[in-house]
Amino acid sequence: MRIDGTHYRTIWPSTDRDRIHVIDQRVLPHAFEIVTLSHWTDARAAIARMTVRGAPLIGATGAWGYYLAARLDPGDAHLLEAFESLCQARPTAVNLRWALEQAHATVMQAPPATRAARAEAFAHALCEADVAVCEAIGATGLELVRAAAGRRTNGPVNILTHCNAGWLGCVDWGTALAPIYKAHEAGLDVHVWVDETRPRNQGASLTAWELRQHGVPHTVIVDNAGGHLMQHGQVDMCIVGTDRVTRTGDVCNKIGTYLKALAAFDNEVPFYVALPSSTIDWDLADGLREVPIEERASSEVSEVYGELEDGRIARVRVTPDGTECANPAFDVTPARLITALITERGLTDAGEEALRARFRRFH
Amino acid sequence: MRIDGTHYRTIWPSTDRDRIHVIDQRVLPHAFEIVTLSHWTDARAAIARMTVRGAPLIGATGAWGYYLAARLDPGDAHLLEAFESLCQARPTAVNLRWALEQAHATVMQAPPATRAARAEAFAHALCEADVAVCEAIGATGLELVRAAAGRRTNGPVNILTHCNAGWLGCVDWGTALAPIYKAHEAGLDVHVWVDETRPRNQGASLTAWELRQHGVPHTVIVDNAGGHLMQHGQVDMCIVGTDRVTRTGDVCNKIGTYLKALAAFDNEVPFYVALPSSTIDWDLADGLREVPIEERASSEVSEVYGELEDGRIARVRVTPDGTECANPAFDVTPARLITALITERGLTDAGEEALRARFRRFH
Repeated sequence: MRIDGTHYRTIWPSTDRDRIHVIDQRVLPHAFEIVTLSHWTDARAAIARMTVRGAPLIGATGAWGYYLAARLDPGDAHLLEAFESLCQARPTAVNLRWALEQAHATVMQAPPATRAARAEAFAHALCEADVAVCEAIGATGLELVRAAAGRRTNGPVNILTHCNAGWLGCVDWGTALAPIYKAHEAGLDVHVWVDETRPRNQGASLTAWELRQHGVPHTVIVDNAGGHLMQHGQVDMCIVGTDRVTRTGDVCNKIGTYLKALAAFDNEVPFYVALPSSTIDWDLADGLREVPIEERASSEVSEVYGELEDGRIARVRVTPDGTECANPAFDVTPARLITALITERGLTDAGEEALRARFRRFH
Repeated sequence: MRIDGTHYRTIWPSTDRDRIHVIDQRVLPHAFEIVTLSHWTDARAAIARMTVRGAPLIGATGAWGYYLAARLDPGDAHLLEAFESLCQARPTAVNLRWALEQAHATVMQAPPATRAARAEAFAHALCEADVAVCEAIGATGLELVRAAAGRRTNGPVNILTHCNAGWLGCVDWGTALAPIYKAHEAGLDVHVWVDETRPRNQGASLTAWELRQHGVPHTVIVDNAGGHLMQHGQVDMCIVGTDRVTRTGDVCNKIGTYLKALAAFDNEVPFYVALPSSTIDWDLADGLREVPIEERASSEVSEVYGELEDGRIARVRVTPDGTECANPAFDVTPARLITALITERGLTDAGEEALRARFRRFH
């Protein structure tokens, strides 16, 4: 999508293919910086340190990281080490393991001399496929926005989103934001309520930044405010992304998603989850019991990162010195609270039967 | 309660009764500063700027502010001006108007020469009554905590609270935190999940600070996390305060309370609201339609206040420069989601019949 009028993707190889470039999402929205990954361990660090984030982009970074490993040493032992190490960079993201398993299986079939080329082709194809998938999600979601616009007598369609499931979390377009970009480009009047999404503020920083760059009207709110807005008819629909969906339609997403789904259900506001089908974990049936939830650093809660009046970037501590904080990074929204899943193959009920039928998966 | 081992209240007159002292709650938890109110407009400013906050303390500050006005000029016109101006300092807090109406009615019955003394006696009695009411709330709530402790086989009773309804919001003891202090002093094993409570972080700053000063175990969490903790059995009960309760039991409290009540209901976690009966607005029947919700400054959302690594206090902007933010300060939790109200007269159902019976109010 556009940054200062120029089209960007979130990840791309250098011209000579020996390095990978990504946008440093830790310094957005205050600075726009490109980070170069020269070694596969740089890719692992970029994932672990959240230089890149968002399920599809984590997968793409894993695939390009695997390519860097194959380029350095295509031997079996080295690639196995890289595969396993990259998989561990973020435990909750199913896309990472999915991308790496496919990369590893594809590449290991080839003789060592051609493995780097094969890994490169795989990473490239993965990125192109991600863009196509996001565009298809956008096209499906666009029809929901169009229908909501038709039901309104005046004013914009108000869409609430949580965290950042925009193009910054993918290669381009995004998942939850793809329908919004498509609607905006189709000339529909849309307005986005952006949950700030504590503790890391991906909404206030990333979603607000990318919507602003692309010219989509939006307003940032604290995570506490969405229920109140829904009670007062100020939200026409919610669209969020997800890091992992069980085969029964339970949705693991950024902490706080469950609370918004409860409020949407209580106020009869449609609650949609946008996802590429690669996010579905067919091995899991019970999101609450089976999805491991990452517990992140206490300092993400106690300290807030932002820009000082003089333009410098700093952290301020909001708690008393030494206060203990807990920081579960994700929660699980039960399928019963979800109106529908927006996938690259169209709208689907959040349930095992519908998901199996749509994606032709059987025991 | 205790600060560094010394007992404090949140508001007290100077020895010669010509000034009023309050704790500056805007600089907590990073600094402990006493602010002196010399003129009734200082009291108005302290309320409006949130130097003091919390429904009962706002009422007490209003009453002491009215005393300062009576001391300065006990004439009818001046006291009417002070009464009306002080009422406007925070529109949502029903306690402020309640305290001021009582003060004004009591004082105006007296001849001008004795009005200052009468206003002082009123403010003093209001504070003593508030302490007694909070202790009674604590005693009622203590039995709920004791019962929960009896149901547990091991570990502490985990209580989630939102915002600050502690002693800092009252004169002493607090409302939602009074049962916790009473349980702690009774030797029960309690642990408090403290919602940080964006945008002003009263939980992370004030609740964490006062629990820490008093030695009650607690953990700060982002507002997004409570639903997840309830899904996983890590919350035994929620106790929150309120700024205004309708006669039908709808509860207006800090933005985000409604989301926690939904999660508690969904997970069969008891959800209690602690309040002095002065918080009940008998004129209102429908919280969602009738309670005016204060919309506060956008900068409270876009900027976070805290302590830099070098100890200085600063604000950091978390959104892109120029991003619009909306900031509704309160929401309304419908009575249907509330297990019971903890009042100075015991536990009461959140419903008109029960409230009228308990407080002997009839049309």
